[in-house]
Amino acid sequence: MADRGVLMAAEIVEQPDVWRRLMTEGRSQFETVAGRIAAYDPSMILFVARGTSDHAALYGKYLTEIIGRRPAGLVSPSTMTAYGARPNLDRVLMVGVSQSGGSPDLVQSLQVARQQGALTLAITNQPGSPLAETAELEIDVMAGPERAVAATKSYTAQLLALFLIIDRLRGGNGSASRDSAAVESLPSLAEQVIAGDEQVRELAQRYRFVSRLVTTARGYSYATAREAALKLMETSYLGAQAFSGADLLHGPLAMIDPQVPVFTVVGEGVGGEAMQQVLPRLAEVGAEVFCVGSPAAVRAATAGVALPVGVSEELSPLLEIIPFQQLALHLAVARGGDPDAPRGLKKVTETL
Amino acid sequence: MADRGVLMAAEIVEQPDVWRRLMTEGRSQFETVAGRIAAYDPSMILFVARGTSDHAALYGKYLTEIIGRRPAGLVSPSTMTAYGARPNLDRVLMVGVSQSGGSPDLVQSLQVARQQGALTLAITNQPGSPLAETAELEIDVMAGPERAVAATKSYTAQLLALFLIIDRLRGGNGSASRDSAAVESLPSLAEQVIAGDEQVRELAQRYRFVSRLVTTARGYSYATAREAALKLMETSYLGAQAFSGADLLHGPLAMIDPQVPVFTVVGEGVGGEAMQQVLPRLAEVGAEVFCVGSPAAVRAATAGVALPVGVSEELSPLLEIIPFQQLALHLAVARGGDPDAPRGLKKVTETL
Repeated sequence: MADRGVLMAAEIVEQPDVWRRLMTEGRSQFETVAGRIAAYDPSMILFVARGTSDHAALYGKYLTEIIGRRPAGLVSPSTMTAYGARPNLDRVLMVGVSQSGGSPDLVQSLQVARQQGALTLAITNQPGSPLAETAELEIDVMAGPERAVAATKSYTAQLLALFLIIDRLRGGNGSASRDSAAVESLPSLAEQVIAGDEQVRELAQRYRFVSRLVTTARGYSYATAREAALKLMETSYLGAQAFSGADLLHGPLAMIDPQVPVFTVVGEGVGGEAMQQVLPRLAEVGAEVFCVGSPAAVRAATAGVALPVGVSEELSPLLEIIPFQQLALHLAVARGGDPDAPRGLKKVTETL
Repeated sequence: MADRGVLMAAEIVEQPDVWRRLMTEGRSQFETVAGRIAAYDPSMILFVARGTSDHAALYGKYLTEIIGRRPAGLVSPSTMTAYGARPNLDRVLMVGVSQSGGSPDLVQSLQVARQQGALTLAITNQPGSPLAETAELEIDVMAGPERAVAATKSYTAQLLALFLIIDRLRGGNGSASRDSAAVESLPSLAEQVIAGDEQVRELAQRYRFVSRLVTTARGYSYATAREAALKLMETSYLGAQAFSGADLLHGPLAMIDPQVPVFTVVGEGVGGEAMQQVLPRLAEVGAEVFCVGSPAAVRAATAGVALPVGVSEELSPLLEIIPFQQLALHLAVARGGDPDAPRGLKKVTETL
């Protein structure tokens, strides 16, 4: 039992090196794939994914809409598998995102998409996986074997891969774009965040007996809120619900009271600013607010973790999720669970 | 206090008449709008909505992908408002769904969509509302004034409107299609479901002290699971989390135990069949299962409400939500709340 969480802890720490590898050894993949996508000139991008990878896809959707200047959607895999839908997908880029590349419904979705005229791309951590074999284009996120059931390093590697692809669609080249300094500085900034682990372990004790909580953010960081909630659910067995800050005000706010802590992500950019509409409403209902984000936002909250400043907003999800990964780990251990092997779960989930 | 929930109760009962009105007095709207959409021949349909209306949009997304044979997406309003994204929307149909037609972020999203080349359609319960004025095309769902904060009749009217529009895209005409008998029989079938109110009131007592629950379904019924969770949250102040049956197995299953009842929708069609992969996993973890759906599925569950058989699957969400509306009402009253005016909420939520 002393070893509970050692795999997850090690994989959290590996993240900066995974990103460095993807930006150096993995670099040529992006040139090839981005070239093919630019030549195809998609009129829209669809993503298909499940679980943690679906949160990476959600980040990809925001990137596509905002910096990719194209409409985007998250496909419900069942429509093309169970329901046998055969939509016209001319000029659609369909991106499958999966750590294992092994889920049959994603493989079948990409097969159908390819038959229906889409350009297909698999983003996986498993070269040669069924998903990678099915797609015309492939990105290996090079995170290395991920042994903890709760995905960490494969998630942030997926985020980085999506950024490096979609950034090129707007004319960036992954190193000379206006964000290039920021991309290249991410690994060392992540090391600073990871070094705060002991602080997060202490903060986790406060939530030892919580039965449910809410996570919320807006914009790019909404993906972080979703992924944070899933990490907490799957490792700590508590009820964690994620809402965009705007949707929270459209109903779910009613179920928040001082017994339901709210975990927010409030960064320096547009998404963080939009959260300023939400925070006073949380204060009105007496909610405890835990914040990951800008130093000012953390100071205004009950507790939280301040992130390095000056990171461009579209890259901030890579850093923001780290304190939540640490929190999920420490909270699970404190509550007697084993985040490396949560009850009822397997590493590769096969849904049809 | 004796009057808690009377508005919501009355609005639940009104639903069959609302649908009848929409199919008779409202009929010509669909001919006009569907004609314009067919002439435009969209290559994809995007939906923009919040809260309950976002669940209607989710149903519209499944309809579009499966029977509309086109890709679909749910737009994050913030990308076009807060982030100022200006995607190329040639040949895109953008549908705004809103009870009040008054939320500024939806209005602005449709404005931007129109500037960017999309054909725009507003589906509201408020002719002349800002959203309806902004869009090129408009459908009035004719649900009449909705006074309870928890939306019921406007939701199912939105579902019906979406079906009547997208059905025509596949060549149906809303009365001579292969589902026409089913559409026209819906109001009287809904009356049968509504008549089960006393049974639901009794079942609700079992969940008087629950602190959190999960709702789950697949396919078209996933919209029902999402809407059921929102109704329960906003009226009964409990933690209700909705998952597609497939996503549930990718992580959240870990937090389900015998203290967390699972509310399923298991119909006769493809979506219900796909749930057969999920139900044994719920049994393994000892979950209590409450089911709305086919008589066989309800018999296999701990408790539930059987729906009339023989309804075509794509129309079943109109009936499935009714027992959950009733459950939300009775549970809220049993727990001391007022579902007509939940704490912390207003009828029109204005987010930017």
